[in-house]
Amino acid sequence: MLLIKIGGSKKFDWENIAKDLKELNTPYILVHGANEYMKEICKRMGETEKIIISPSGYESRYSDSKTMDIFLQAYSGLANKRIVEVLRRNGIDAIGLSGVDGGLWKATKKEKIIGRFLEEPGSKNKVIRDNYVGKVDHVNVKLIRLLLDNNFVPVITAPAISSEGEIVNVDNDRAVAVMVRELSIKDMIMLFEAPGLLRDLDDISSLVKNISIKNFDEMLKYAKARMKKKVLGAKEAFDNGLERMYWGDGRIKSPVSNCLQGKGTIISR
Amino acid sequence: MLLIKIGGSKKFDWENIAKDLKELNTPYILVHGANEYMKEICKRMGETEKIIISPSGYESRYSDSKTMDIFLQAYSGLANKRIVEVLRRNGIDAIGLSGVDGGLWKATKKEKIIGRFLEEPGSKNKVIRDNYVGKVDHVNVKLIRLLLDNNFVPVITAPAISSEGEIVNVDNDRAVAVMVRELSIKDMIMLFEAPGLLRDLDDISSLVKNISIKNFDEMLKYAKARMKKKVLGAKEAFDNGLERMYWGDGRIKSPVSNCLQGKGTIISR
Repeated sequence: MLLIKIGGSKKFDWENIAKDLKELNTPYILVHGANEYMKEICKRMGETEKIIISPSGYESRYSDSKTMDIFLQAYSGLANKRIVEVLRRNGIDAIGLSGVDGGLWKATKKEKIIGRFLEEPGSKNKVIRDNYVGKVDHVNVKLIRLLLDNNFVPVITAPAISSEGEIVNVDNDRAVAVMVRELSIKDMIMLFEAPGLLRDLDDISSLVKNISIKNFDEMLKYAKARMKKKVLGAKEAFDNGLERMYWGDGRIKSPVSNCLQGKGTIISR
Repeated sequence: MLLIKIGGSKKFDWENIAKDLKELNTPYILVHGANEYMKEICKRMGETEKIIISPSGYESRYSDSKTMDIFLQAYSGLANKRIVEVLRRNGIDAIGLSGVDGGLWKATKKEKIIGRFLEEPGSKNKVIRDNYVGKVDHVNVKLIRLLLDNNFVPVITAPAISSEGEIVNVDNDRAVAVMVRELSIKDMIMLFEAPGLLRDLDDISSLVKNISIKNFDEMLKYAKARMKKKVLGAKEAFDNGLERMYWGDGRIKSPVSNCLQGKGTIISR
């Protein structure tokens, strides 16, 4: 079984991706983001996104109840259903689910978070409570197997649901690592807006074709900005039993098969 | 098996509904609307909803691609997931799905529609093409049975998917009638913002407690505005094999059990 994680960019050509997925002859689960959909809807609604910076410098989205309403619109509504539409049109029996549905992604809510807002330069760290964020601990394995056994392709996106039954924003990459552990997944694909891991961001020929997760520190050195999170996510997935991770560009033709053929970066044990 | 249809009002107290549903000891499917969520999001996005009036006076929402994007946000995103959240918090193993997911509601798209826009008084009837609307013909019985057999409560909402694989807006009440036929449903509940069918809209004591669908013409005479659609939907459901339909107020305490105890309107064969 293959786990495929596709970023939330609007630059991906889903017709392209769907045609490529149709040729796969192994069962798979798809997890997607919707970050750019979220940004667009916030803008149209006149809402400004707020970013919390933790004392250690880690950035996360401020997710109060109002923000989570928009999150649901963007992730579980617009992006998830438009993706399912394209997949179905290409003959894939896709079923779209959020982590909330059937308790698919069970999370622990962070009751409070300490940090300051990026949008308030010079402000001090404070306790932020009205923030619906959490960390995925478990996956509903029974539901996923039920769908796969009946030849459906699960198309999954955030948010998750907390043990108290509240919708919480979670990090997709960490949720995916929990799926790896609980579903004993060995192979994973990640598509994003880059050809793979580059030694030099400005030089495509510096693509790292093969690397072992043992060289984690080296990977972290090459990774810039949001790519750092991907490297950390990869580490966690390997810690959880993953054997191979394929990184590739979601914007090109046949992105999935190209990835599997080693045209991006292959990370191994 | 019970089919429960709940309108898209924001006046319903879902905590209340969930607590009542938790006490039901029969399997059920939930179908909900999200009309007021849709109106609110349109307003916040600065989009004006447009209504098409057919030559026979039937009103429907103009559903171009842009409108359907918002429809997905409101119905499949915000409303569906917030409802699933409340149900799950009350111990119900709810799984939210749109008619798109797993091909749950299969529709035939209307390639063109003839009508004029309500917002353009005095305009003539014309052919409107850029309109993603359709009529549900079939339900994915296998998927619904799979979920019910595994003790999930399906929480379903529009839109549907056309045979060409396009997301289309459909009438929930007609979709429900197709579910009645294909799942051999005998009992159905409808909750809306009224105590039931009233002989006189301004007089709650004029509630019709029991009526046979044979008196369809009489029902249609009492029904005003949007209630007419409910009466037509009821007729279709009975034509499709339904035995009993319970109408009741979604705004009161214990709305489902009150309905089943005959405190609203009971329609029989």
